[in-house]
Amino acid sequence: MKKYITISREYGSGGRLIGKMVAEQLGYAFYDKEIIDMAAEESGLSAEFIKKTEQNLSSGWLYNLLLGTSYAGTSAGGVGQPVGQAVLPLADQIFNAERKIILGLTKEPCVIVGRCADYILSTSDQIDNKDLLNVFIYADIEAKIKRIEEIYKETESCAKKTIIQIDKRRANHYNTFTENTWGDRKNYDMMINSSTAGIEATAKWIVEMAKY
Amino acid sequence: MKKYITISREYGSGGRLIGKMVAEQLGYAFYDKEIIDMAAEESGLSAEFIKKTEQNLSSGWLYNLLLGTSYAGTSAGGVGQPVGQAVLPLADQIFNAERKIILGLTKEPCVIVGRCADYILSTSDQIDNKDLLNVFIYADIEAKIKRIEEIYKETESCAKKTIIQIDKRRANHYNTFTENTWGDRKNYDMMINSSTAGIEATAKWIVEMAKY
Repeated sequence: MKKYITISREYGSGGRLIGKMVAEQLGYAFYDKEIIDMAAEESGLSAEFIKKTEQNLSSGWLYNLLLGTSYAGTSAGGVGQPVGQAVLPLADQIFNAERKIILGLTKEPCVIVGRCADYILSTSDQIDNKDLLNVFIYADIEAKIKRIEEIYKETESCAKKTIIQIDKRRANHYNTFTENTWGDRKNYDMMINSSTAGIEATAKWIVEMAKY
Repeated sequence: MKKYITISREYGSGGRLIGKMVAEQLGYAFYDKEIIDMAAEESGLSAEFIKKTEQNLSSGWLYNLLLGTSYAGTSAGGVGQPVGQAVLPLADQIFNAERKIILGLTKEPCVIVGRCADYILSTSDQIDNKDLLNVFIYADIEAKIKRIEEIYKETESCAKKTIIQIDKRRANHYNTFTENTWGDRKNYDMMINSSTAGIEATAKWIVEMAKY
């Protein structure tokens, strides 16, 4: 029986809802946006700020390395702060806080949605990979648009733009903070198109698969 | 209940065996290499020749277009033959023969392994997409190497090279003859890592999914 299930998902694929159903059916804890509040407490940053910046900032260190930004204060032996780019390392602070929270969540069986949890748990010495099931949920573009139109009352063209934009942000975030590529099958135990059989059936499949 | 199941697969992932198990459990017909013999009969080419060239030739027409090869005989209004590249369009002949065979197989419920069957059935007017389940099987590289070592008594380094080479050929073939990219999640209803739960469990999952 898998103890930890991570759900990565395309925007509009119903991944969050599927994760919630899986957690309910297995009697597991469920974490998604709750991780933001926990990371706020851990990092001392406000939850609102984390929510806004979580997927809009690249890794400060990588970004500065690429730009060749000089760090002030390193000559004195202290940890340097980038000149004129002081806001960027916050992305790393947020990622590290979320990483710590996610590892802490594995004290009990759980389903975690997003936040690079598949990578964080796969690469941790604390976790036996036999206990871990990493799932990626995707869907046909028509199904995703219909879902966003219905839930958020958006027009078709607006829904399409939002889907492209949010998935681009998710991919950027994942690709920056992990060594993997978002959506690459190598990272996951299975990838399911939720438009094939719908949200309920997809959740049921994952519950079945968690039994092995 | 899905009537037609296509299995695309990475070399060494056990996809063929999984497909066979699914067919047995559902009582469906199973096709893999049998298609070569049928295509031989259809095209008039020998089965041995088809087997050798099936995935070694690119599409002749595309290839010639890219090279800008001139076609002789077109001025007379007939279908031209490429000058000095006469062998290449055979790849198209083989693909078309296999396409015809694959569409003919759908007279009864079946499992088809490889041969761009997912694309051929998805794009055919004859097939209702609700009857079709397109599955992609992959596996961790260590599991694939172990499998090839055991079955074909190859050394580890030789097995690794074979895996890379055969998957490259499969991808080239698929990408040449379809409008899609081999292994891209958009083409499939689900993608399963067979090393997560093993061959038997993976087959069982697909059988379950075929019920929706």
